[in-house]
This record gives sequence, structure tokens and C-alpha cells, in this order.
Amino acid sequence: MSVKPLSVLNKAISSRVIVELRAGREFRGVLDGFDMHMNLVLKDSEEMIDGEIVSRADTTIVRGDNVIYISP
Amino acid sequence: MSVKPLSVLNKAISSRVIVELRAGREFRGVLDGFDMHMNLVLKDSEEMIDGEIVSRADTTIVRGDNVIYISP
Amino acid sequence: MSVKPLSVLNKAISSRVIVELRAGREFRGVLDGFDMHMNLVLKDSEEMIDGEIVSRADTTIVRGDNVIYISP
Amino acid sequence: MSVKPLSVLNKAISSRVIVELRAGREFRGVLDGFDMHMNLVLKDSEEMIDGEIVSRADTTIVRGDNVIYISP
Amino acid sequence: MSVKPLSVLNKAISSRVIVELRAGREFRGVLDGFDMHMNLVLKDSEEMIDGEIVSRADTTIVRGDNVIYISP
Amino acid sequence: MSVKPLSVLNKAISSRVIVELRAGREFRGVLDGFDMHMNLVLKDSEEMIDGEIVSRADTTIVRGDNVIYISP
Amino acid sequence: MSVKPLSVLNKAISSRVIVELRAGREFRGVLDGFDMHMNLVLKDSEEMIDGEIVSRADTTIVRGDNVIYISP
Repeated sequence: MSVKPLSVLNKAISSRVIVELRAGREFRGVLDGFDMHMNLVLKDSEEMIDGEIVSRADTTIVRGDNVIYISP
Repeated sequence: MSVKPLSVLNKAISSRVIVELRAGREFRGVLDGFDMHMNLVLKDSEEMIDGEIVSRADTTIVRGDNVIYISP
Repeated sequence: MSVKPLSVLNKAISSRVIVELRAGREFRGVLDGFDMHMNLVLKDSEEMIDGEIVSRADTTIVRGDNVIYISP
Repeated sequence: MSVKPLSVLNKAISSRVIVELRAGREFRGVLDGFDMHMNLVLKDSEEMIDGEIVSRADTTIVRGDNVIYISP
Repeated sequence: MSVKPLSVLNKAISSRVIVELRAGREFRGVLDGFDMHMNLVLKDSEEMIDGEIVSRADTTIVRGDNVIYISP
Repeated sequence: MSVKPLSVLNKAISSRVIVELRAGREFRGVLDGFDMHMNLVLKDSEEMIDGEIVSRADTTIVRGDNVIYISP
Repeated sequence: MSVKPLSVLNKAISSRVIVELRAGREFRGVLDGFDMHMNLVLKDSEEMIDGEIVSRADTTIVRGDNVIYISP
């Protein structure tokens, strides 16, 4: 039986996720919300570029069209 | 319970935000408005390229499809 | 209270604006009109590439999907 | 009072226009028609790349999503 | 009076056209059909890259979003 | 009389096709199906990059927006 | 008789697939689900960049617009 990507995302709410973006950017934080475009809300996240932490933020809204993959 | 990205953006109205755009561009300013495409209105903002301030403006309308993330 | 990006653009009609486009291109001119895609009509504008004026025109129609930001 | 970009384009029918495309390409010719995607029909046009004429054609249909700006 | 780009394309059916694509690719052949996305059917076409013929084909279906311009 | 690109594709079902993708990638195989986005199903296909075979597969689903052209 | 790409994908549920993404990235894992945008859910997957394993994950949600092809 097949699962829907957005359902899997929904189950990841409140847990830590890795979000890989284009151009070597990555976020690690707690998934607080999302919408059907895969726009994401992350809490307590770290932004990494090429593997190094470049910033930390309480709340970050990521625009979905930059996302390559999300790992809960 | 899940939150919607645009609701989080709505709560950030009138507060300072960091807006990361593609190609190393960033805005820091007060979020004055937005629409469903994540087009943004910023007040009293600084534009930074690769970490250096390159301009200041009273009002800036950012086209949403350049946005990577927004941090309230 | 939140403002809409296109309303802010509407108030900028007949005043001078800076229009930053992708690939280092910029227009400075009087905003004469726009539509919901952020296609723009500029009057008496200068086109700049990497900070140097490369052309002047009475009327220019800019296709919206090249726009990074507009500063009234 | 605001004008619409496509109305300005409509007034430019039968007159010479400069069409700037991505990747350093430009067309100069008579605007013979267009549609809502800014697909264009040009007559008696010259194609220029990086400022040099590389071809001439009686009729050219330009796909709108390559357009940066049009100057009547 | 304005003409529509797709009408001009329709008149070019059965005649030879030059189709310029992104990334230095070009097709020269007989236009056999198209749809509203500017997907094209070419007959007896030559594919050229940077001005050199790299292949010939009886039938080629070109996906419209690669098209820069078409010259009948 | 004009033919539709997807009709031509439909006639190519069960025959061998060349599928040119962006970034120097090519597939050669038997067209087993497609949809209106030009997503393709290929059977017994070879994947080539810059003219060299890099993989073989019984079944491959190609996402349409990578397609430059298809030659039956 | 023609098959639909998403039907082929549906038959691949619960079996191992290779997912080739843009920019030299590849996933190998068990297909657990998908939607009409080709967003994918992979289980027990390996992420490879230029042929080397760079990460492993129990669950990965891949955004469809990065997909070049999927091989069941």
C-alpha cells in the first residue's frame, strides 16, 4: 500500500528533520508545519552550508521550491 | 499540531526579519506585508550581498520566487 | 495590519523606482504600470548592468519573472 | 493612473521594438503580434548576441519566457 | 492589426523552419505540427550544436520550454 | 494539416526512441508510455552521458521537464 | 497499448528503485509512496553524490521537481 509524501511529512511534525536545499544548503531543526507547496516551518534550526553551521534561528520559514529532500 | 508557513509569516508582521534570497543576497528589515506567493513588503531594510550591506531603502517589494527562507 | 505587495506597488505609480533584476541588471525609472505577474511599465528609465548605465529608453516593459525586488 | 504592460505592448504593434532576451541575446524588429505569455511575433528583425548581428529574418516567433524586457 | 504567435506558427506548417533552443542547440526542418505549449513536431530535421550538424532525423518532437525562437 | 506532438508520441509507442535530456544525458530505448507532461516510460533502455553508455535498465520513468526532444 | 508513467511507479511500490536527481545526486531505496508531482517517499535509502554514498536514512521525502528519472 502506497503512502503520500505529505502524510509522511505530517507524521514528522514536532520531530527533528534534515532539510536539504539546492546550492549546498541544509537545515536541521524541528518541523513545526508545512503546506502543500512543501513550504516548511522549522523551530530551533541550524543552517549549514557545505557542512558547516552558518546560522541558528528560533523560527525559519523555508520556501518549498528550494527543497531537494526532507529526512525525518 | 501543525502550523501553516503563511500563518507564521503573518505573526511576523511589524517585526524584524531576515530574508535570504538566491545568489547570496539577503534583506534585513521590518516585515510590512506579504501575499500567497511570498512576495514581501519590507520597511527600513538593508540589502546585503555576501554579507556586506550594499543598499538601504524605506520600502522594498521582494518577488517571492527569489526567497530561500525567512527568519522572523 | 498587513499590506499587500501589489498595493504598495500601486501607490508607487508615477514615482521613481529602482527595479533589481537577475544577472546584475537594474532599471531606474518612473513606474507607469504593472500587472499581477509583476510585469512592469517604466518611463524615462535607465538600464544598468553591474552599476553602469548601458541604455536609456522612453518606455520599457519588464517581464515580471526577472524581478528580484522593486524599491519605490 | 496605471497602465497595463500588455496594453503598452498593444500600442507598439507595427512599430520597431528592442527585445532583450536572456543569455545576451537581443532582437530588433517590428512588433507584429503577441499573446498573454509575451510570446512575440517580430517582422524584419535582426538577432544580436553580445551586441553583434548574427542573423536576420522576415518573421520570428519569440517564446515569451526568454524575454527580459521590451522597449518600443 | 495584431497577429497571434500561434497563428503565425500555424501558417508555417509544412514549410521549413529554424528552431533555436537553449544551450546553443538548433533544429532546421519542416514544421509538421505544434501545440499550445510550443511543443513542436519537425520532419527531416537537422540538429545543430554551436553551428555544426550533430544529427539528422525523420521525426523529432521538441519540448516547447526549450524554445527561444522559431523562424519560418 | 497539422499533427499534435502527443499524437506523434502515441504512434511511437512500442518502437525505439532517442530521448535527449538536459545536461548531456540521453536515453535510447523502447517507448512504453507517456503522459501529457511528457513524462515517459522506457523499456530496455540505455542511458548515455556525453555519448557514453553509463547504465542499462529494464524500465525507466523519465520526468518530462528534463526532455529537450524525442526522436522516434 | 500505452502505459502511464504514474501507473508504472505505482507497481514499483515496495520494491527497490534508483532515483536520479539533478546535480549528480542519486537515491537508492525502497519506494514507499509518491504523488502526482512525483514527490517520492523512500525507505532505507542511500544518498549518493557523484557515485559515492554520502548518507543513509530510514525515510526520505524527495521533492519531485528534482527528479530526472526513476528506475524500478
